[in-house]
Amino acid sequence: MSLKTVICVLWAVCVGHTEGIQHGPNIIIMLMDDMGWGDLGVFGEPSKETPNLDVMAAQGMLFPNFYTANPLCSPSRAALLTGRLPVRNGFYTTNAHARNAYTPQEIVGGISQDEILLPELLKKKDYVSKIIGKWYYEEFEINVKTGESNLTQIYLKEGLDFISQQATAQRPFFLYWAPDATHSPVYASERFLGKSQRGRYGDAVMELDDSIGQILAHLVSLGIHNNTLVFFTSDNGAAVMSGAHQSGSNGPFLCGKETTFEGGMREPAIAWWPGRIPAGTVSYQLASVMDLFSTSLSVTGVLPPDDRVIDGLDLSPVLFNNSLLDRPIFYYRGNQMMAVRIGQYKVHYWTWSNSWEEYNTGINFCPGQEVPGVTTHTQEEHTMQPLIFHLGQDPGERYPISVQSEEYRDVHRQVTAVVEQHQKDLIPGMPQLNMCDLAVMNWSPPGCELLGKCLKAPESNPWKCVWPH
Amino acid sequence: MSLKTVICVLWAVCVGHTEGIQHGPNIIIMLMDDMGWGDLGVFGEPSKETPNLDVMAAQGMLFPNFYTANPLCSPSRAALLTGRLPVRNGFYTTNAHARNAYTPQEIVGGISQDEILLPELLKKKDYVSKIIGKWYYEEFEINVKTGESNLTQIYLKEGLDFISQQATAQRPFFLYWAPDATHSPVYASERFLGKSQRGRYGDAVMELDDSIGQILAHLVSLGIHNNTLVFFTSDNGAAVMSGAHQSGSNGPFLCGKETTFEGGMREPAIAWWPGRIPAGTVSYQLASVMDLFSTSLSVTGVLPPDDRVIDGLDLSPVLFNNSLLDRPIFYYRGNQMMAVRIGQYKVHYWTWSNSWEEYNTGINFCPGQEVPGVTTHTQEEHTMQPLIFHLGQDPGERYPISVQSEEYRDVHRQVTAVVEQHQKDLIPGMPQLNMCDLAVMNWSPPGCELLGKCLKAPESNPWKCVWPH
Repeated sequence: MSLKTVICVLWAVCVGHTEGIQHGPNIIIMLMDDMGWGDLGVFGEPSKETPNLDVMAAQGMLFPNFYTANPLCSPSRAALLTGRLPVRNGFYTTNAHARNAYTPQEIVGGISQDEILLPELLKKKDYVSKIIGKWYYEEFEINVKTGESNLTQIYLKEGLDFISQQATAQRPFFLYWAPDATHSPVYASERFLGKSQRGRYGDAVMELDDSIGQILAHLVSLGIHNNTLVFFTSDNGAAVMSGAHQSGSNGPFLCGKETTFEGGMREPAIAWWPGRIPAGTVSYQLASVMDLFSTSLSVTGVLPPDDRVIDGLDLSPVLFNNSLLDRPIFYYRGNQMMAVRIGQYKVHYWTWSNSWEEYNTGINFCPGQEVPGVTTHTQEEHTMQPLIFHLGQDPGERYPISVQSEEYRDVHRQVTAVVEQHQKDLIPGMPQLNMCDLAVMNWSPPGCELLGKCLKAPESNPWKCVWPH
Repeated sequence: MSLKTVICVLWAVCVGHTEGIQHGPNIIIMLMDDMGWGDLGVFGEPSKETPNLDVMAAQGMLFPNFYTANPLCSPSRAALLTGRLPVRNGFYTTNAHARNAYTPQEIVGGISQDEILLPELLKKKDYVSKIIGKWYYEEFEINVKTGESNLTQIYLKEGLDFISQQATAQRPFFLYWAPDATHSPVYASERFLGKSQRGRYGDAVMELDDSIGQILAHLVSLGIHNNTLVFFTSDNGAAVMSGAHQSGSNGPFLCGKETTFEGGMREPAIAWWPGRIPAGTVSYQLASVMDLFSTSLSVTGVLPPDDRVIDGLDLSPVLFNNSLLDRPIFYYRGNQMMAVRIGQYKVHYWTWSNSWEEYNTGINFCPGQEVPGVTTHTQEEHTMQPLIFHLGQDPGERYPISVQSEEYRDVHRQVTAVVEQHQKDLIPGMPQLNMCDLAVMNWSPPGCELLGKCLKAPESNPWKCVWPH
């Protein structure tokens, strides 16, 4: 090859590249379902079956202190899309104190019409948005006995095709890629079934990891990797109540999904943007899924709504300059603020794992991890004398700091000011999930005639939703 | 019962009690073998099979930041008895850089005659001392197939009898109770075999836990619990290279026995002294097995030797007033200072797990935990630019702090001063373990004639000891 040819090739690449960054950066949010902090090799999972995610972290920025906004999937996802705590965006109920909110099909309501979603805002800058995965109504077969399903492969193909199309059309895009293979019943396609050392759950993780590797490689092959922010995380902690082979690992953290202990709300998280985010960085920034809303707006140059409180933080200074921003993390269940983290300290105002009734049926949110007075089965109020943990000394939330210590008094004083400010500013949204009704279920989804699958809806007979936890 | 009788009973108890504290406090050190930080329920072990140790912690003080002086059993034990680092007391070799030192039977040497042991010092105050367990020459049968042995029961009975005898004679005592059931090949007696959810290793832990419960109950029943300091710990981290059912758990920490990562040197530790140590306390004091030497002298009113450096710290202010004392932890392998901890920071000057030769035979000191550039298989020197970890943010030693950060420079400067001081004061002891010789083995232990088991020693043919790691 002559020098001239080399120059031509380089020029072609450069032109392609230059054309690729004519528009604002693409955004890809990869949101896993019930995947735990401890499920990635880079976070210490011993089987080391996430080579692609581990490489993604080596090429990007790892967030060991990343949080969801709620320990349950749907309010967490509503928070991502709105940049707001569920208690503000209305994705909660007031039916029963501190109960979580989720969305069985009989629920009336969802995200309030008054909320502004991230793709709506990005549209102002001509972004093409697509959600692939969870939060569709769809019938899809999973062989519960064998755990086989090729759904992740379909999600992968949909994602790759969407990316190709936008790259070809040179349109900026927002892809919200939300596979659910790690939610019980966990599943994997034939090629991955039985391949993991961690059982069926591990098979699902391996397939997701492989898919993520393919998506990143696709961005590189299209030459748009230097103009695409990819963020990987999960909606809530591993569902440890589902048992060993149907759930993941929360690493050293207490309990899991549905609780406001660290295992319920600390998430694996990686940001990737070659050339912009310094490779191989670890940021201890306290960050939240709601920050993905604010950060996406910031990097695309869209102004956030100014008529409402946004809980998300613009992480650009963290991503691009490795700054550390001071901010609290609030841990909610339903409309109840259960705990707050400031710095290394976590302050529990309320504790609860699940009810005795549920626990006595064998459902344990903290298997092998019960801490007396902490993982309580009644809703315990500690507002007058909160439980305080130092997560640096005690990541497992096992040893409350003595209430007689100076450290306790200092932290209590500091956090009280933060909480008072938060509560002063808080205008709870209208709760959207109080009512359930079998008639609202999707009895006749579009296309049902063609499939001969239309069903007749029953008469409307609404009732107050009641969650078991 | 009349009031008079009640008063009589109380008086009798009080007299007994008063008589019990005529002399200085008894000391019991319970030293486990290869038990890991993560093996106790109170440290998060999920099977929760250490109810007695968990109660001991609830009645005493828990130390999550307790360290051994060496990640191998015999130098660690030599450090306990002398209050000095092995590099000072001579319990090391200079044959091969950074090699550990241990005591196979063919070794020439042991603790130097110039060293002063804890029981020698306590004798000045008429303490009766006894060691039960490891560091005897003894032939004892363990059925390696079934894992059955009643050795722990024998150690228990020896311990209880010794305590009874001293209590009856009203003599102050030092009991060094060092069972080895959790060292591979692990064993348990018939009553415990197969009882654990953790396999044979767990059976051994259950039996030790049960024995410890019996010893503490015995102190209470004799009325001497208010005059006895009991300290529970282990000699080094769990031997994770021995495989799942022959080794314990180091919780969230990296690697295990024989390494200077946290899994090799962080130990479970509980102090118990009803009425003196506040119940249910957690101390984050950086503490060391060598402190047991200094603390034992302090509480018994014996002055430490003033002609040599003692590395142990008197923990009395910690135990009785919950103070926090500033001090570094040094991590040695052989004569090599590998790492230093100050506060939450750990600074590695050298890294090494085990050699490639050994690793390639299938022996892995960090199974499932390899961290590139950290768990190295060559002896890597980092003295010019040490690896620094923040153990509060990163207890698993996975993410070295960026050398370009201000944090790195600050910590490096601070720790350099500490290390320079340490090295300036350091006069290495004469290495005692350089030579091996089959002729020094205990061919004819006392009593061998009676058993017809005397053997003839071979000719002396000494060689330089070489350790595989």
